[in-house]
Amino acid sequence: MIKTRVSELLGIEYPILKGGMVWVSNSRLTAAVSNAGGLGVMGIGAMDLDTFDKELRALKGMTDRPFGVSCPLIRPDYEVMLNAALERGVNIVVTSAGNPAKVNKMLLDAGVIAIHVVANVKMAKKVEDLGYHMLVAEGFEAGGHNGRDELTTFTLVPQVVDAVRIPVIAAGGIADARGMVAAFALGAEGIQMGTRFVATKESPVHENFKMAIINAGDTDTTITGRAFNDPTRVIKNDFTEKIIDAERKGVDPVKILEMIGSDRTYIGSVKGDMDNGSLMSGQVAGMIKELKSVEEVIKDIISGLAPVVNRISGTLVSRPDGGTD
Amino acid sequence: MIKTRVSELLGIEYPILKGGMVWVSNSRLTAAVSNAGGLGVMGIGAMDLDTFDKELRALKGMTDRPFGVSCPLIRPDYEVMLNAALERGVNIVVTSAGNPAKVNKMLLDAGVIAIHVVANVKMAKKVEDLGYHMLVAEGFEAGGHNGRDELTTFTLVPQVVDAVRIPVIAAGGIADARGMVAAFALGAEGIQMGTRFVATKESPVHENFKMAIINAGDTDTTITGRAFNDPTRVIKNDFTEKIIDAERKGVDPVKILEMIGSDRTYIGSVKGDMDNGSLMSGQVAGMIKELKSVEEVIKDIISGLAPVVNRISGTLVSRPDGGTD
Repeated sequence: MIKTRVSELLGIEYPILKGGMVWVSNSRLTAAVSNAGGLGVMGIGAMDLDTFDKELRALKGMTDRPFGVSCPLIRPDYEVMLNAALERGVNIVVTSAGNPAKVNKMLLDAGVIAIHVVANVKMAKKVEDLGYHMLVAEGFEAGGHNGRDELTTFTLVPQVVDAVRIPVIAAGGIADARGMVAAFALGAEGIQMGTRFVATKESPVHENFKMAIINAGDTDTTITGRAFNDPTRVIKNDFTEKIIDAERKGVDPVKILEMIGSDRTYIGSVKGDMDNGSLMSGQVAGMIKELKSVEEVIKDIISGLAPVVNRISGTLVSRPDGGTD
Repeated sequence: MIKTRVSELLGIEYPILKGGMVWVSNSRLTAAVSNAGGLGVMGIGAMDLDTFDKELRALKGMTDRPFGVSCPLIRPDYEVMLNAALERGVNIVVTSAGNPAKVNKMLLDAGVIAIHVVANVKMAKKVEDLGYHMLVAEGFEAGGHNGRDELTTFTLVPQVVDAVRIPVIAAGGIADARGMVAAFALGAEGIQMGTRFVATKESPVHENFKMAIINAGDTDTTITGRAFNDPTRVIKNDFTEKIIDAERKGVDPVKILEMIGSDRTYIGSVKGDMDNGSLMSGQVAGMIKELKSVEEVIKDIISGLAPVVNRISGTLVSRPDGGTD
């Protein structure tokens, strides 16, 4: 067990969370993360109530460990979905992409552990003031919907840690033990990973999408949606080229949104259309070279921590006799 | 002393470099960094030969420790400046912003230690193949001219470390001991700081600029020049608002370059015009709260390393008896 306020509050072995990714974070992947000692978080952003019910039952059948659900507050009926989660006894809730003041009372009254995803210091302070128990500080390198301020994990995490007293979970750019140690160096007490869990055996996405992550190089992600204030990090393809070209030419955002249409993430993630789909992925895709099971991902990170810490300790910390470890 | 391949090759006490910032990295600031045990790097990007001669003499009068010079290869007469540096016996040269294949032979023939600044893996491999001795991997959060791929320090550094055998110096987002430890966790063997050294007592920039960094919050920098392929991170002001507005509207890049005109960095950094100048700064400005001497900056980082390493070691590394340190 790794004891931090994050793992203790959540009742988990390792302070490693899975992001609540739309079309990815289903019951199976969520259970796999919880069973491996982390916190599985089921993304209910694209589910209707029936699907949620089925998935929640499936999830409870696959794990008796703690798990959470995640709901973006831009979803019009977020209140319906959150209420449904609370009524069904979910006791860890992650909110994102919207104003946490709309739901904090509901969550706190229900007695759940409430976590909000933030991308700048102002929102972090607000989340703390609203009574949330912890927060995820997500950097610009992260996949999917992204903060408009473009603060990176390296600069966001320590500034958030300095600004609040509640525990901070770092997200964006983390896929291995080096990243977890770096996040802790910056003051985080937990990490959240998204892209690394997309490329696992238990992940429900199309094999094409998994292989696109495995094969991606360092420069193979980009940001779409800057022009209409919804920056989203995805893998570069024909679709992103068209959108970014239109954004660059100053095409009316309404027209660009028409070009995008709906279901792009579904088309990419589930249907596996690598040319016309939107494939949410972080910059960290370039570091992910192998399809692993969720258990392998987490075990490899945990067993990799001591070597990384010992390497930096041996280099950076002098012994009293003047040598280094 | 902190022993890494970076500190040993450069003959310095601590593997901490100062970026070769235009209008900032003059003889005085460079000498201060070298005298404090790091590597001062004099930026000759905006100097003519006479100024360089004067500054080099001044620098040699202020320190007998190792120092380097830095020249961006977009400068039209980079060859003249680099030749001048080699003729005058400078033996550490940092190049950036251009094709290192244009100068590697010149630098290697002269027997100097050659360092190039990179922002993606492809360039890192090229730099290694060209015989450079080490490289600076600079993330998107860094101040000033920025890579077009927008790779952050958190994702760039480990990917570069995995791709080359030469030592990697991390740059972008580092201003304190937490950042140095995080950079080492990601595999760096040295760090380079820019913005932190701009806001020092020895820095030659206008007091207004120093105070703008001290007073900046997390979201107070932005990127200008995306539209004309010269992304540059600066502090937000009237000037950046106008430029970014024009970029968003799809205004012809040639017209935007006319709007910018020349000397914007000089107007901001030296003249202290906070509204109309270009004030290069990294996202890390939000973490810099105090004007310090260069010696304080370096001492505070070095003395802060052990507490950070011990904190993460106590949390992440289990003792053989099953407890934690």
